[in-house]
Amino acid sequence: MSGNAPSIGSPRQGVEVQSATQSREIWRVALDRPGVNTIPDEAHDTDVATLDAIAVEEPLEIRVEGEPIAITMRTPGEDESLAAGFCLAEGIVTVADDIESVRPCPRSEAGNAVNVQLVPGARQRGLAALVLAKREFVSSSACGVCGARSIERIERATPRSSWKVQVPARLLAALPQRMLVAQRSFARTGGLHAAALFDIEGRLLVLHEDIGRHNAVDKVVGRELLLGRLPLKDRILVVSGRAGFELVQKAAMAQIPMLCAVGAPSTLAVDLARRIGLTLVGFLRTEGFNVYAGRERVGA
Amino acid sequence: MSGNAPSIGSPRQGVEVQSATQSREIWRVALDRPGVNTIPDEAHDTDVATLDAIAVEEPLEIRVEGEPIAITMRTPGEDESLAAGFCLAEGIVTVADDIESVRPCPRSEAGNAVNVQLVPGARQRGLAALVLAKREFVSSSACGVCGARSIERIERATPRSSWKVQVPARLLAALPQRMLVAQRSFARTGGLHAAALFDIEGRLLVLHEDIGRHNAVDKVVGRELLLGRLPLKDRILVVSGRAGFELVQKAAMAQIPMLCAVGAPSTLAVDLARRIGLTLVGFLRTEGFNVYAGRERVGA
Repeated sequence: MSGNAPSIGSPRQGVEVQSATQSREIWRVALDRPGVNTIPDEAHDTDVATLDAIAVEEPLEIRVEGEPIAITMRTPGEDESLAAGFCLAEGIVTVADDIESVRPCPRSEAGNAVNVQLVPGARQRGLAALVLAKREFVSSSACGVCGARSIERIERATPRSSWKVQVPARLLAALPQRMLVAQRSFARTGGLHAAALFDIEGRLLVLHEDIGRHNAVDKVVGRELLLGRLPLKDRILVVSGRAGFELVQKAAMAQIPMLCAVGAPSTLAVDLARRIGLTLVGFLRTEGFNVYAGRERVGA
Repeated sequence: MSGNAPSIGSPRQGVEVQSATQSREIWRVALDRPGVNTIPDEAHDTDVATLDAIAVEEPLEIRVEGEPIAITMRTPGEDESLAAGFCLAEGIVTVADDIESVRPCPRSEAGNAVNVQLVPGARQRGLAALVLAKREFVSSSACGVCGARSIERIERATPRSSWKVQVPARLLAALPQRMLVAQRSFARTGGLHAAALFDIEGRLLVLHEDIGRHNAVDKVVGRELLLGRLPLKDRILVVSGRAGFELVQKAAMAQIPMLCAVGAPSTLAVDLARRIGLTLVGFLRTEGFNVYAGRERVGA
């Protein structure tokens, strides 16, 4: 089980905790509690920006013997371990001795690729497992579209000039509670993500739950698509969890101008939202929320 | 934008909320608070099973023009919308008129496949977008390995007879707090998942954070693999979020006998854990937790 240890790009020992956040300028909106203070002019303070630490999200391409086998949206750091763990789970390797080396690919774009080289004796079985894995798993709604071409495609598909809505801060803050009331399953299991579409008066139009948050959004958007209701220019999409790159992508492709998450956004989500002019709200609560992009759509 | 509405398998109107849970027998463990009552014999009541509602997780294959393009782990229901929304996000369709029909595939295994048929005029652009998407996204650590062959492979790789550990309930209940103390980034952003490996005395060995929970587990397991420490027969894996099928798979392939989640498990996670004899704990808190599989490893 031990033998020759594989050569890895950045070996580390002992207990290890890594921090992987970046600063972004955000706008905090604090709302007075109803009944305590209801002066509308004090309902938001989005003119004052502040710096906040945001979880980093970037694509990593995993290669085996030089061939790309997966792209995952991850927080950078310990990429060699990630690639090795992925190969173990997929049955491509079973012990350290199967691996000759794990190294970043020097010529990959932005350095976001890592290659797992197998020892000659492990190559045949490893590649057989790889073929099996590929036959079973072509792609995933959760694995992200993140190349430069994809971002350009999203930009082309989202004519920001048509997104004219503005919504009061207080209306946004009321949406999670409305979503929660409708989430019968969530209350029962605690195991389902929810995505809900509201109009700009705050009326719930459709809600779907799913074990995967990307699926919940696909269900909401796909239903509107099938009913011929796109583009969704005057709609607000609210999600129960965190907001990564792909949720911004999915909102943008449906031309939804505002995406609000009860959880935290990622750096890539914030950066994409700013680039395409989409409003991104995070930590949406009754008491307030953070605006990460497109604050011009959040009114008093 | 409207035109002829596409033919869909199960059209629905208006606000819609779906419940998608199944019952499983589970064991609740309630711990007395330290200082209030510390009689060890009363520390757990795992002999009494109870029924609990669990979020359903099943694979869905999305096909375009009959060709498989993605497999996603989803909660069944509204599959046609899910497929349509996925195709919109990937740029394969842009309006309802691009779609001729969305229907379940009659001959697919267990009915878990849905096909999106494009109208002739939308076919060329749709398939071009599909090729682009495929070139960029081969697979994903988050999209799941879920076919029958995969489950057999996981079973073969996990000789349950070698998993002899037993751990006191009180020790398990202490782990989330230990993990949280080590999660510096989490406290800063609220946007990172964590996975941590403990020994059976409850000592934290390694912790990694990531925007994706699957990545965090891959990093933890991959690191141990690269250091030649597999199989991890006397280790406990703790994750900060929910536990789906794939996390059980990843634990099993590393031969970790106990997987504990701070969040909820899915039906497929519970069923796989039982089949391979892995201990699965959910809603792990200082005050107690639920045991979904392998309760023989949870001691007084």
